[in-house]
Amino acid sequence: MSGFSRFTPLANQLPATVPFVGPEAIERRMGRDVRARIGANESGFGPAPSVLETISRKAKEIWRYNDPENHALKTALGAHLGLTASNFVISEGIDDLLGLIVRLVIEPGMPVVTSLGGYPTFNFHVAGFGGRLVTTAYREDREDLQGLLDAVRREDAPLVYLANPDNPMGSWWDAPSIVSFAKSLPETTLLILDEAYSETAPEGSIPAITAFIDMPNVIRTRTFSKAYGLAGARVGYGIGTPGTVSAFDKIRNHFGMPRLSTEAALAALKDQAYLSKVIAEIADARMRISAIARANGLHPLPSATNFVAVDTGRDGVYARAIVDGLMEHGVFIRMPGVAPLNRCIRISAGVPADLDLLEQALPKVLKAVG
Amino acid sequence: MSGFSRFTPLANQLPATVPFVGPEAIERRMGRDVRARIGANESGFGPAPSVLETISRKAKEIWRYNDPENHALKTALGAHLGLTASNFVISEGIDDLLGLIVRLVIEPGMPVVTSLGGYPTFNFHVAGFGGRLVTTAYREDREDLQGLLDAVRREDAPLVYLANPDNPMGSWWDAPSIVSFAKSLPETTLLILDEAYSETAPEGSIPAITAFIDMPNVIRTRTFSKAYGLAGARVGYGIGTPGTVSAFDKIRNHFGMPRLSTEAALAALKDQAYLSKVIAEIADARMRISAIARANGLHPLPSATNFVAVDTGRDGVYARAIVDGLMEHGVFIRMPGVAPLNRCIRISAGVPADLDLLEQALPKVLKAVG
Repeated sequence: MSGFSRFTPLANQLPATVPFVGPEAIERRMGRDVRARIGANESGFGPAPSVLETISRKAKEIWRYNDPENHALKTALGAHLGLTASNFVISEGIDDLLGLIVRLVIEPGMPVVTSLGGYPTFNFHVAGFGGRLVTTAYREDREDLQGLLDAVRREDAPLVYLANPDNPMGSWWDAPSIVSFAKSLPETTLLILDEAYSETAPEGSIPAITAFIDMPNVIRTRTFSKAYGLAGARVGYGIGTPGTVSAFDKIRNHFGMPRLSTEAALAALKDQAYLSKVIAEIADARMRISAIARANGLHPLPSATNFVAVDTGRDGVYARAIVDGLMEHGVFIRMPGVAPLNRCIRISAGVPADLDLLEQALPKVLKAVG
Repeated sequence: MSGFSRFTPLANQLPATVPFVGPEAIERRMGRDVRARIGANESGFGPAPSVLETISRKAKEIWRYNDPENHALKTALGAHLGLTASNFVISEGIDDLLGLIVRLVIEPGMPVVTSLGGYPTFNFHVAGFGGRLVTTAYREDREDLQGLLDAVRREDAPLVYLANPDNPMGSWWDAPSIVSFAKSLPETTLLILDEAYSETAPEGSIPAITAFIDMPNVIRTRTFSKAYGLAGARVGYGIGTPGTVSAFDKIRNHFGMPRLSTEAALAALKDQAYLSKVIAEIADARMRISAIARANGLHPLPSATNFVAVDTGRDGVYARAIVDGLMEHGVFIRMPGVAPLNRCIRISAGVPADLDLLEQALPKVLKAVG
């Protein structure tokens, strides 16, 4: 399988590993269909009916490139959140934004601070631009704010990643702790505050939208992929000072946003009643997942997200056996990648029918893996 | 407008200019609606009705991330073109692929060869990764194959870009010339052969799909944005050896492809009857644009694409006045960016109603600009 002989040394040294294997790939490799898709923190509750109606109605405009300035969506987000369009950058999911941020900040060899076991796609982008990951262990299943701060100072790191609420553990900090962390960082360190799960977080855990609005070294990232039920649309956004977010224009794929995805996001933003309904359904699903776990002798962790991390009480080998065993029953879940987090399995909030399948399969799997 | 203080030196030195201003931005700035959208080489004929039906039917699956391996689309393209899935990389339009290719090959300061006046988005990506553009002038409104080859050899350039058919001029080379060019390149030079307009090209101008299939230093790029009428979906693909295209997996945004866009592309590929119909309509539109140009004393150039470059017989200032004047009538067209190409205006193949507006406005504009 011969490839071009003159890729950059950096490209040549990168591994072929990918951040996540998709459920479709697992289906193909196992020759078995996913019956309950509750592993990727998608929302099986789906987007609002008003969003589906918008997509169908706007489909005939798909021959047009999207507005590369994303004016309508930035304006709508500004109105929704009490900011202005100039505070936003829109991109093809937070994943794409993370790559752009790393590219804007990191030269080969530079240190980047994150938590050991944190979001693999961020690590993928850091590696992809030759950055050097500096990790801090979780403490009591939360990202360790003091540990991250110490690492930033020790390394004089230009970039630090923090998710609140956290993935893969579902844990969170209260807003004052996050604000204090951000304000303790040197001005020469850019904080990525990933708030992908902000909609499902408990009261008091998400800093006010104005908390960092004058801080050029903070970018908050959010998405329509989770509670809004639009993972397949690929719409993420970053919030920051106009000076910071305008830097993306120098490098981003200006015509990258799909037209119907933008229309879907606009419609989703308008339908806050539906969002509230889904958030309640997600809360119910978290409770049911927790109950199923407990009924099987496992220990569900508290969650601020649309998934529940469930402590199996044993190690990563055991958790992996459960994940693989559930897939034998068509139940797709995931688990954290590194110890000690990987003593857990991670189950996304799903519709009742999906959780029924989980409830039926889990005791059989636990019995089989022993 | 203060921004983060520690972006990379490269990021700081990049200009804020963007490759293209979208028609929506022109509308906002002029306070005038586009009535005939025939400037961005989109297809006003739209996608097949079967594609629209597919989008509506599949919309409810938008809560799911797309398969990051793009297995179905790569397999379908392989079957359609007589290759295998391993010959393809799928991405959010050719624009995204171009950025990824530059990133895989170019380190700051390295030379990249292209034609003076060629695709601005490619140049944007080269600048974005610190590459040094080395340009060769067009000859008789075609990209100069010998000139490109000479520049590659002189500079020992690792990357060269060639569009066949060409944008913005609509010109083309015959297949043997392209094959000969590719085979004359050093193995250490990667050729991007951009075939965005391959569907509308005349017989004999597109090399056989197997022509480069054993050459690791050739990537052909194609898209669903032009003849397939799916510009807003953002589906492009690269064709190359398995070894070369697999390199993208090291750096691409694996979960970047929108789910409905992939479904739309799959449906479009299946409806070749519709594609044939649109290609005939595009040919008719080119003839009509040419006739309108001639009737107004302008000189249309031959075109292998879904647009016609029209020689105004004067300079870039004059052509710009026509472009701006037409927009005063709601007719959105574009023009090449540099001399001598910018003596031309560029008009996309549109539906008859759009060309009616062009026909009505053009004589008034020419009279006004004098």
